[in-house]
Formats: sequence, C-alpha cells, structure tokens
Amino acid sequence: MALNPYFEPAPNGDTAFTISPPRIKFGRGALRELGYDAKALGMSRVALFTDAQVATLAPMAIAKAALSEAGIDAVIYDEVEVEPTDRSFKAATAFALDGGFDGYISVGGGSVMDTCKAANLYATHPVDDFLAYVNAPIGGALAAPGPIKPHIACPTTFGTASECTAMSIFDLLEMEVKTGIANPVLKPDLGIIDPDTLATLPSEIVAANAFDVFSHAIESYTALPYTKREPVSDPTKRPVSQGANPMSDLNCLEAIRLIGVNLVDAVKAPTPDHFEALAFSGMLAGIGFGNAGCHMPHAMSYAVAGLVRDYEPKGWQSNHPMVPHGISVIVNAPAVFRRTGPACPERHLAAAEAMGADISGAAPENAGDILAERVADLMRETDMPNGNSGVGYSEDDLDALTERTHAQQRLVKLAPMAVDKAMIKEMFRDSLRYW
Amino acid sequence: MALNPYFEPAPNGDTAFTISPPRIKFGRGALRELGYDAKALGMSRVALFTDAQVATLAPMAIAKAALSEAGIDAVIYDEVEVEPTDRSFKAATAFALDGGFDGYISVGGGSVMDTCKAANLYATHPVDDFLAYVNAPIGGALAAPGPIKPHIACPTTFGTASECTAMSIFDLLEMEVKTGIANPVLKPDLGIIDPDTLATLPSEIVAANAFDVFSHAIESYTALPYTKREPVSDPTKRPVSQGANPMSDLNCLEAIRLIGVNLVDAVKAPTPDHFEALAFSGMLAGIGFGNAGCHMPHAMSYAVAGLVRDYEPKGWQSNHPMVPHGISVIVNAPAVFRRTGPACPERHLAAAEAMGADISGAAPENAGDILAERVADLMRETDMPNGNSGVGYSEDDLDALTERTHAQQRLVKLAPMAVDKAMIKEMFRDSLRYW
Repeated sequence: MALNPYFEPAPNGDTAFTISPPRIKFGRGALRELGYDAKALGMSRVALFTDAQVATLAPMAIAKAALSEAGIDAVIYDEVEVEPTDRSFKAATAFALDGGFDGYISVGGGSVMDTCKAANLYATHPVDDFLAYVNAPIGGALAAPGPIKPHIACPTTFGTASECTAMSIFDLLEMEVKTGIANPVLKPDLGIIDPDTLATLPSEIVAANAFDVFSHAIESYTALPYTKREPVSDPTKRPVSQGANPMSDLNCLEAIRLIGVNLVDAVKAPTPDHFEALAFSGMLAGIGFGNAGCHMPHAMSYAVAGLVRDYEPKGWQSNHPMVPHGISVIVNAPAVFRRTGPACPERHLAAAEAMGADISGAAPENAGDILAERVADLMRETDMPNGNSGVGYSEDDLDALTERTHAQQRLVKLAPMAVDKAMIKEMFRDSLRYW
Repeated sequence: MALNPYFEPAPNGDTAFTISPPRIKFGRGALRELGYDAKALGMSRVALFTDAQVATLAPMAIAKAALSEAGIDAVIYDEVEVEPTDRSFKAATAFALDGGFDGYISVGGGSVMDTCKAANLYATHPVDDFLAYVNAPIGGALAAPGPIKPHIACPTTFGTASECTAMSIFDLLEMEVKTGIANPVLKPDLGIIDPDTLATLPSEIVAANAFDVFSHAIESYTALPYTKREPVSDPTKRPVSQGANPMSDLNCLEAIRLIGVNLVDAVKAPTPDHFEALAFSGMLAGIGFGNAGCHMPHAMSYAVAGLVRDYEPKGWQSNHPMVPHGISVIVNAPAVFRRTGPACPERHLAAAEAMGADISGAAPENAGDILAERVADLMRETDMPNGNSGVGYSEDDLDALTERTHAQQRLVKLAPMAVDKAMIKEMFRDSLRYW
C-alpha cells in the first residue's frame, strides 16, 4: 500500500517536498522564560514590537519583566498598525535602522509579528526599492542576501500562526491590494506559544480566529497535491507553499479535529484548557499551511477585507469599518468547498468528519456539500456573519470581489482544480447567505 | 476539554515543551538534488561519509554524481564502522581535521550519520578529552561552544532516524558500554530521505528496522509525560528527550499506524510504495523520539547488543556475532509493555489499535498484554527471533543483562513509572520467549 494514493507521482508534477517546521516552545506560562531564550540567541539589545493595545496588557508586562531580569535592553515600538501597510512597514524599518539592535522580539498578533519580520529584513538588508522583497508579480521576490537578526515571536492571539511561517502580509496602499513577503529568512528563530496570553480575548475574536485555523487546515488539506504542482528548475527554490503533502495532512487533520471538539465551548464558556487546545491547533494548522498553502477562501478573503464599506465587528477595538481576517475567510469557505468537493471528495469528507460531522453513508458526490454544511452550522452556532451578505456585500459587489480575488494567483493556483473568473463569481454568489 | 488530560500540570513537573524538528526533504529520487542543497548551504569542499558496503551501492553513485555536477569537491571517507566506537569516532575526526572541509555529507545508515556528526563536532570544536562531549554521567556533557559545519544526512536505510535527531550513539570500548552524545548542534542542517535508496535492503533488515520504528514510536508515546519530568533551572537547557507531549504523540501514532498497515507486506512482497511508507514512518517516529525520548526497550537493547555471544543474523553482512539494533530492541518490547501497561493503559490500547489490533471491549487492566501480544504476533509473522532466547540468552544471563540496563538511567527514567533492578530482571525473564 502506498504512503497515500493521493500523492501518486503525476506527469510533470513535483517529486519531493520539504519539511522545514518552526522551532516552538509551547506551554502555559512559557512567556516568562523569554529572557532566557533571548539570551541563548545572543540578544543584548532588542527591538520589542507590539501595538498600542497589547502594550497595555499582561503579556507585555511579562515580556518586559523577563527581558529585564535577563539584563537585556529592550526598546519598545508600539506603533504597529493592525492590518499593516507598506507605510507602516517603512515606519517600523526606520525605527529598526536607528536602534542598533542585535535581536527582535514581537509580542502581539499577526500584524505585530509580520511587521517585526519585515522591519528585521529591511533593516538588516536594506534595498532601494521597497517592492524588491515583495512577492511576484507585484514585487521582485528577491531572496535575502543572508540571514537576518534573530527573532522571537510571542503570539498573544492564535490563528495567524505567523510565529510558524516565513510570510509577512500587508496592504500595498498605492495598488489597494493585500500582498506579502514569502522568504525563508522570515521564519522566526523561536516562537513562544503561551496559551495563558489568550485569556482576555473577547469571544468574537476567539470564534473568528478559530475559523481562521479551521480554514488554514482545511484549505491545506484540500490544496493541490505537491505531486501535481509544476516542479521548479532549482530544487532549492521550491515555493514556501508546496501543495498538500503527507506531513501537512497529519498536522492539519489534527488541527481540524481539535477545533471541532473545542470551538463552541471555547466561544461560549471558555476555560484555560480551551485556550491550550486553540493555541496548539493554531500552531498545527500553521505548520500545515506554512508548508502546504491555502487556496480560495484565503484568496477571496483579501477582496472581502479590502472592499469593506461599513461593517464594524463587535469585539474588535477599531475606529473604522473592517472585516477581521478570520471572518473575511470563513464567509467564503462553505461556498468554496461546495465547488472543490468533486476534486478530492474523500478529503472533504475526512475534514467534515474531523469537524464532528456524521459521514456514515455519505456519497462522494455530496462531499463538498457535507463539509460546507458542517462549517455553516458551526458559524451559525457561534454567531458568525451569515456569509458575505452578513458583512455588507450584495449581488452588486460580485464583479469587484471577483476581480480582486482573481489577482491572487499564488493562492488561486493552489486550489485542487482550475478556477477561473466565472467560477470565482459563482463562489461569491453562493457565499452571500448560508441560512 | 483540555488539549489532552494526560498532560495535566503536575506538582514539580515541567510546564512547557519545545518543538525543534528537523529540516527534511522527502521524495523518491530526492537524493539526485543533493548537489543543489550542498551548494545552497555554502559547501564547496565536503567530507563524504559512508561505509565500505554502501560505498559500492547506487545511492553513493547518485550522491557523487550530484556533487560533481554542482562543482563540489568531495573527499570520501568509507572507514565508518558499523556499530561505531570511540576508536572509530577518533579515526573519523582525524580525517575531518586534516581535510579543511566546509561541509559534511553522510550517505548510509545510522552508523554513518552518527560518525559524521561526531567527526564534525570534534573537528570543528576540538577538545583534549574525548569524553568532554559525551553524555553524563559517563562524559562531561559539554555544550558545543558554537555551531558546527553544515551537514546533510542522506539515509540509505530507515528507522535510525539519525537524520532527524541531535544524537550520536557509539560503544565506549574501555567501559564496554553503549553511550552517546546528545547535543543540539548535532542535528543535521538537512536530511534527504529518498525512499528509492531502500530498494535493495534484505527483508530481514526491513523487518528489524520497521520494529525499531515501531518501538521508537510506542516508547515515545508511552514515555513519562513532560508534565511529570522534573523541570530544569535554566529553561533553555531542557533535555533533548523531554517526555511524551502532544506533538510527539501526533507523529508517533501516525508512525505506528503506517508501520502496522505496511509491515508484513513490506517484508514479504515489498514494492516502492512500501519503501515510501517505511521511510516516512521512520521519519515521523524520529521526530517523535527525537523530542520525547525512548525508555525501557531501548535501555535493554544496549545490554542485549553488548553481551552478544554467538548470534549471527541472516541478512546482515557481518563477520562477527551481533544483534542488529532493531532486533535487540524488539525482543524486549512485549515484556516491557506488559509491565508499563498499568501506568497509562489508554495509551497502550491506542498503540495496539494503531497497529491493527481489535481493542473493542478491551479492559484497561489488559492494555499492556494486548499491546504485547500484537507486537509478538507481528514478530512471529515476520520471522523475528522469539524473544531474548532467540538471540542466545538464557536465565543465566538475567543478572548481567539487568546490570547493564540499569546503568542506562537516561532512558530508564523516561519509563512511565519507576523501574528498579528487580523489575528490569523480571522484564528480561519475561522476554526470553513469547510463543
């Protein structure tokens, strides 16, 4: 019996995959060990990235105390923008260039960790053109000329898994597009995942982030298999997102299972145990999508977030309309899975089962629908918006959403079958309302 | 619900665990990419470690051609001893010191990879006393003063998982003891796992190595949980073997399942698909035991291998009596699991089920026996020796085997309950014959 028949060699497909997982410390209270870890990485004067809100919370107090006890000089940068932009990345880089730092520490969510990664890269290896390091085709996808300074990422939320990945995502203002930098040097030297830091998250954020984890894991599990992705001519240049493979499968299915078991209770009656499960599953999904890659729900999320008009979510401290990342992803997911089901029905069924659905007697032709309904049921149960109409979109927006999504070819190409504009539009039409 | 109640915080127990997995490239034919990977790691003149037998086989020809095409100068060292000793480590170090190498490549089994690791360490950071780097209490357990040269490990067998771990095992001749070096710098920079290299393994070696994988995975899964291991005062100094944790669990259970499905066919009617599954499960178990740790079957194996009298296994090219590693482990395993069952019955049952046993209606008090019987059944089906009597031991040897095993405290302490000399002796007595 093969390792997995899903990965049978295919004509013109790649033949190997790489596993380059993050270095992580996991445990309740682990953030208190930050000073030891910074010292072990040779840090003596660090740039300590956070945002204005996290700056006032317990995890930052713990981080500062731990660094101080270890005799490490820390200069705080709390001007990280939530949903960072090239402008905020440049501001952070200017701070980093000025400081003479020998290490970087980020304490916060994905925006903080991603800004810290970018500032470290741009300050360590400056370039004249900001777009040089940005993903093609928007930027030049330049490889870093060497390692960057050590970085310890300390998430105070879960789901983004930026501590696990070699990616940094931002909005490029002049082109009004969400893009990023995918570069192996961006992977933090250490991620410290302390589930206790999640204790103060509002339930709306818990739900949205848990759905982000679900979608990372399901998208990676249903992504084009690596054996069907075109090989690269230089095998050291395999893309960060390689397609589904046996290693990402293992991590993703367990992430789906853990979220499936914990989601509703974690939203409605959370305990420290739930936060431990959420933090761990977010990491597993991060390991999975960090080496397999996401596809349509994430590709569509950038359009959903980017074209926001007046949606102001409960639970987020924000003074302007926004669709939080997890929500902007999951509102698309059921509509996508109905379409991708036929490409790998057994995987859609396995994901639904891992989420707690009863799949006994399910026919392969219903696999996509079964997964879609399971996701939608959980969305309804946790008060998520009812599809894209729930975040303010209507039939009139389908073309604009479709255009922006189609531009995300890096993600669109990882869908398990070819997806053209007409199909994206149908996915968005189906996504307007689920119940 | 907790992430896993098995890891409830315990008084005086550790509170966090680290995940520091290997960087791996996996795929049929991946060894052909070696030149690219060596170049990407900055190698221009490499020490190419192998042994006299592997030196004549296809994988070495592939490795040499790949390096040559990439313009990399390779000097071959084929004097690795199978079951290396301090004497052979010193000889390899002398070679490494002389060569002016900027990289190390190992092509072979565990002996080759372990010798290459040691030569790299001793040549990069020489010490006056060979024992300085060796594990305590035999040696000084000295930390390496800095990184060592890049090392690409290319296994041509499976099971040892040396490509995944920061350990190097050898026989210390003057003390007649098997010991090792466990040092984070020993972890190879890249492991290239090419299942095609397994194609010529004799079926006896396939069986023995598959049982080694089984035991790595089951031992790690049933090891003392990290939450019950005494914490270290400096949290950057957590031992390489931390005890069972949620991450090792995930990798180990999948390794057990894959071996369970493939073992018999892989021994009796192997295909390339089987080799892919074996190579992958060996890696998963390696990730698992590389961060959790083995316990009694491995502790006992060192005595079983070390006291060999006249056992000469079929399938191995050897001119002297020896008990191959996988055999020296698995002959102990059923006797151990009968004793460890009560410490974590649910884990023994889950392992038995992952191996294909029917556990419906099984009572917890029978968990150890059920796992032991499943292992013994598979041993019989694949012509493994019938316990320690099958490799030449009798009641008369119990004391000597027990003494040597008791000395392996690093492993003995990872058993899920306290194990004293009397219990070790009972385990050996039970291990003499299984059917």
